[in-house]
Amino acid sequence: MRGGTSKCWMFDEAAMPAEPSLDRVLAAAFGSADPRQIDGVGGATSTTSKAAIVRKSVDADVDVEYLFAQVGIGVVGVEWGSNCGNCATAVGLYALQTGLVPATDPVSVVRMRNRNTEAVLTATVPTPDGIVPELGGQTVPGSTAAGVPVALGFLNPAGTSTGRLLPTGNPVDRVDSAEATLIDAGAPAMLADAVRLGATAHESIEEFEAFVPELSRLRRLGALRMGLDSPQDPVRHGVPKVGVVGAPGPYRTSAGVEVPAADHDLAVRMLSMHAPHPAIGLTSAVAVATGVVTTGTLAATLAGNRPSEISIRLGTPAGVVPVDIDLDDSGAVRAVTLHRAARRIATAELLVPVRVPVPGSLAP
Amino acid sequence: MRGGTSKCWMFDEAAMPAEPSLDRVLAAAFGSADPRQIDGVGGATSTTSKAAIVRKSVDADVDVEYLFAQVGIGVVGVEWGSNCGNCATAVGLYALQTGLVPATDPVSVVRMRNRNTEAVLTATVPTPDGIVPELGGQTVPGSTAAGVPVALGFLNPAGTSTGRLLPTGNPVDRVDSAEATLIDAGAPAMLADAVRLGATAHESIEEFEAFVPELSRLRRLGALRMGLDSPQDPVRHGVPKVGVVGAPGPYRTSAGVEVPAADHDLAVRMLSMHAPHPAIGLTSAVAVATGVVTTGTLAATLAGNRPSEISIRLGTPAGVVPVDIDLDDSGAVRAVTLHRAARRIATAELLVPVRVPVPGSLAP
Repeated sequence: MRGGTSKCWMFDEAAMPAEPSLDRVLAAAFGSADPRQIDGVGGATSTTSKAAIVRKSVDADVDVEYLFAQVGIGVVGVEWGSNCGNCATAVGLYALQTGLVPATDPVSVVRMRNRNTEAVLTATVPTPDGIVPELGGQTVPGSTAAGVPVALGFLNPAGTSTGRLLPTGNPVDRVDSAEATLIDAGAPAMLADAVRLGATAHESIEEFEAFVPELSRLRRLGALRMGLDSPQDPVRHGVPKVGVVGAPGPYRTSAGVEVPAADHDLAVRMLSMHAPHPAIGLTSAVAVATGVVTTGTLAATLAGNRPSEISIRLGTPAGVVPVDIDLDDSGAVRAVTLHRAARRIATAELLVPVRVPVPGSLAP
Repeated sequence: MRGGTSKCWMFDEAAMPAEPSLDRVLAAAFGSADPRQIDGVGGATSTTSKAAIVRKSVDADVDVEYLFAQVGIGVVGVEWGSNCGNCATAVGLYALQTGLVPATDPVSVVRMRNRNTEAVLTATVPTPDGIVPELGGQTVPGSTAAGVPVALGFLNPAGTSTGRLLPTGNPVDRVDSAEATLIDAGAPAMLADAVRLGATAHESIEEFEAFVPELSRLRRLGALRMGLDSPQDPVRHGVPKVGVVGAPGPYRTSAGVEVPAADHDLAVRMLSMHAPHPAIGLTSAVAVATGVVTTGTLAATLAGNRPSEISIRLGTPAGVVPVDIDLDDSGAVRAVTLHRAARRIATAELLVPVRVPVPGSLAP
């Protein structure tokens, strides 16, 4: 399935082996040994080498649970350390299309727990007359492909990884020469003041390349400051999410579309590992939007403070990403909702050339 | 399916629309609009964005016919100009696995016509007791993945494109500062003397980068000399195949394996469009091997002349590629056979978001 700007293979947990065999089966199914993944169904890029293993939940608070797998490219293995919001949109639609969750009229809400991070998410899909669509007309920044509209809600996102919305207790920290908000919502993120780093947050992807080394260096300092890593730990390149925020201003998207200052509330440029992110990761969008409604953060200062029931428009290289925020009476974030698109690309039986015990099979 | 070092989706022609709708369906099924092919089953590289449309033949001389499609990456469209030997191995195995051609004991031979080029090929697959294997232990240079052994034969390959084995009438031509054999077998190819260009044909892929500009320039001159293009035609980057040949000598493969001079008969380094080819294209291998048995060519001179029923070992960056040659009584090449591996990766129903007339459907 496609979910947003990712391609994810969905697996019924009942048909899959347990770990560690699960890793071997996924790596073999995707053809991970080869950097082009020629001997499997992988797409040979980080956004197209993803899988979700889905099961019906026995808990009352969610309908389905899923494990997200970032499957190796040129490396036989699977990373289990994170959630993927784009795949979560696909999980929601998959749960409805396969009947794991019954559809209702006029919309269906699928409540999901991500087993990697314990995050709880909702996928809301229009299902008039209880009929689940196969195709739709919704698009997302970063792709011209249409799909079924899926509103993806991150519930109670504050403190996902560290237990605290602001792990240092401060809305702004001085980190080396930078000023940054260190915030944990959806994912831990380090959002630096663009101007202080000599940037604007209106850069093209090419222009933003110049800031990758400094932001990669700052990410490690942020990880230590947020208590995500200790000095003796190896340097991680995906945690926390790192980028810059800036006041709105005119810029041109990667597709060449002019975005006036009035069309977005906050400009943001994030990294994806060691490269500029072409748009913004969904968990990063949750962190940035939560920052906007958290008094004193750089995101709040640069975007201005906002009322309790709001939509925030993030200006990213791929275009404007609207994010809805739902606050409770105390001002805490109850949900952050992103508007995505998903569709089924194929339904397949995979021939996986490994010998492992699989539930229901007679021989290994 | 994987065929050799390519990944190819196989389509039953009866389930597909006719051109030009066929192009639209394939482009949409692969997600061609996006360079990562996130909205389809494409693999986002030239070797993983391929398809074959297969049908049973009504002709007596072949069993199946197939159209090869090179599906666009970041471009909505399909190129129909060439054959693909790697996909042909997959077509052969597919024809047996789907019952298009009945298997026989101990081996099955599938006779195929490629409809793009009218080339006739055979795929020979071990099928003991008439049982078609799903998996096998055969590998090919350039991939560590195992598959079912498929011997791919190119029948009467001489003059495939121009009607003449040596389109200029000469076994060696002076082309600008280079000396080259211009030969048409399997595909038209320009095989330059490595030493004369300052190369050895033992280069690593990285080292061979340095020769790409000069060989790209020579390719155009070769195309004109072979009558493939006229001066007013646009420059083509895939025709003819171009590369260098050299005497055998020790070198190290991309995977780090030492290849002594005694382990190969001819060293060859080819281009793939504007980059060094990681191994050698199968039609190029046919051209080079045919050159070895054609008196006076550079390939023959550098490898030495050989008896009539022979196997030639080509030293490529990925390792040694053995090529079998079968000559008729007049010394003409009756068949060139390559030893490949193929396997089914998945069997899928694809959801293709375009509206076109499809055979058997009630409404467009």
